[in-house]
Amino acid sequence: MAELTVTTFKWVPEWPRGHVRDLRVRWALEEAGLPYRVASVPFEGRDADHLAHQPFGQVPWLTDGDISIFESGAILLHLGLRSEALMPSDPRGRSQTMEWVFAALNSMEMATVPWSIFVFSGYSDETPEWKRLDDFVKLRLNHLEPILAEREWLADRFSVADIAMTEVLRLVERLGGLKVYPACREYIARATARPAFVKALADQMAHFAAAD
Amino acid sequence: MAELTVTTFKWVPEWPRGHVRDLRVRWALEEAGLPYRVASVPFEGRDADHLAHQPFGQVPWLTDGDISIFESGAILLHLGLRSEALMPSDPRGRSQTMEWVFAALNSMEMATVPWSIFVFSGYSDETPEWKRLDDFVKLRLNHLEPILAEREWLADRFSVADIAMTEVLRLVERLGGLKVYPACREYIARATARPAFVKALADQMAHFAAAD
Repeated sequence: MAELTVTTFKWVPEWPRGHVRDLRVRWALEEAGLPYRVASVPFEGRDADHLAHQPFGQVPWLTDGDISIFESGAILLHLGLRSEALMPSDPRGRSQTMEWVFAALNSMEMATVPWSIFVFSGYSDETPEWKRLDDFVKLRLNHLEPILAEREWLADRFSVADIAMTEVLRLVERLGGLKVYPACREYIARATARPAFVKALADQMAHFAAAD
Repeated sequence: MAELTVTTFKWVPEWPRGHVRDLRVRWALEEAGLPYRVASVPFEGRDADHLAHQPFGQVPWLTDGDISIFESGAILLHLGLRSEALMPSDPRGRSQTMEWVFAALNSMEMATVPWSIFVFSGYSDETPEWKRLDDFVKLRLNHLEPILAEREWLADRFSVADIAMTEVLRLVERLGGLKVYPACREYIARATARPAFVKALADQMAHFAAAD
């Protein structure tokens, strides 16, 4: 089997620890029981090799033998195509998983990332600009909440779609945006109780702490 | 072969015509030469059947035999797994296509959609909130521009990744955001000169015009 390597930053500041996107990949690899190693690039500066692997200068990327792949969503689907534990191989299970990975990243995270930028930056919560972004997030959460109240996982069973959605929602919860969404909070609790998540999170925290 | 049906709105206002996301799916189907039909749902109101197919109340969704799949990115990959014309079936070509579909939707469109909401809404371009979103788009375009200056298509050949990226960039161009990005504009020109795009766009415009 080709060796799998996840590359992330060597170090990041305190706040983003526990949310850097190599966590999504670590979690998937732990769920699948695939052996992997972790490599690092500097947090400051982006050299040509970094940009050759991740053209937007972000992390993570995964190398799988002679393939190098970036974008956490693409990495999750790549691993899903390798492991039945991450994505069913029948057409219906596969399409369910794919649609919910995109829903997590393109319907939910598209709303929550600009929202989180505003929350972080301490902008006034009275401006029409803020209200517009806050309404965008709530519009999406209002659709998601009844779905998560009715099912354990997004597809028929746990899949990489749940890794993507949990990671998107965890940040919203941390920033105080899930107070009136109990099904979303319970979903996060279910997902983050999984041993693979617990190990992946502890490993990420230890990785950054080792570089302090 | 299972019958393919794309569902979109029956009618939308003038402005979004030519950008509604069924265009991405029509374009892919035309490129692949797959026969399909188009179905409609009302623009006003979302009934239970609509939400059963697209839980966020959006369009499009695709039915492929007994599979119903939503999220334009997921539909593009679903069709890519069906047609070599849309996504190479070798592991390297497939991972390249997947990473660039996600880059288009999760790295680029995540920045351009909130930006476009602000442009549409006519907010002041002097506020720090606007500058933050505008800088986010420029940060991503500054990485994309040199890439598109050096290659014809995002993967080794035309793929669904180019459909996703072109559709994201077309909206930015229409809103005046690509003036200093000539390689992005030339990429759009290359992609939209393809007969499959020309037919898909004409068909979408005719579909909405028929409901006026």
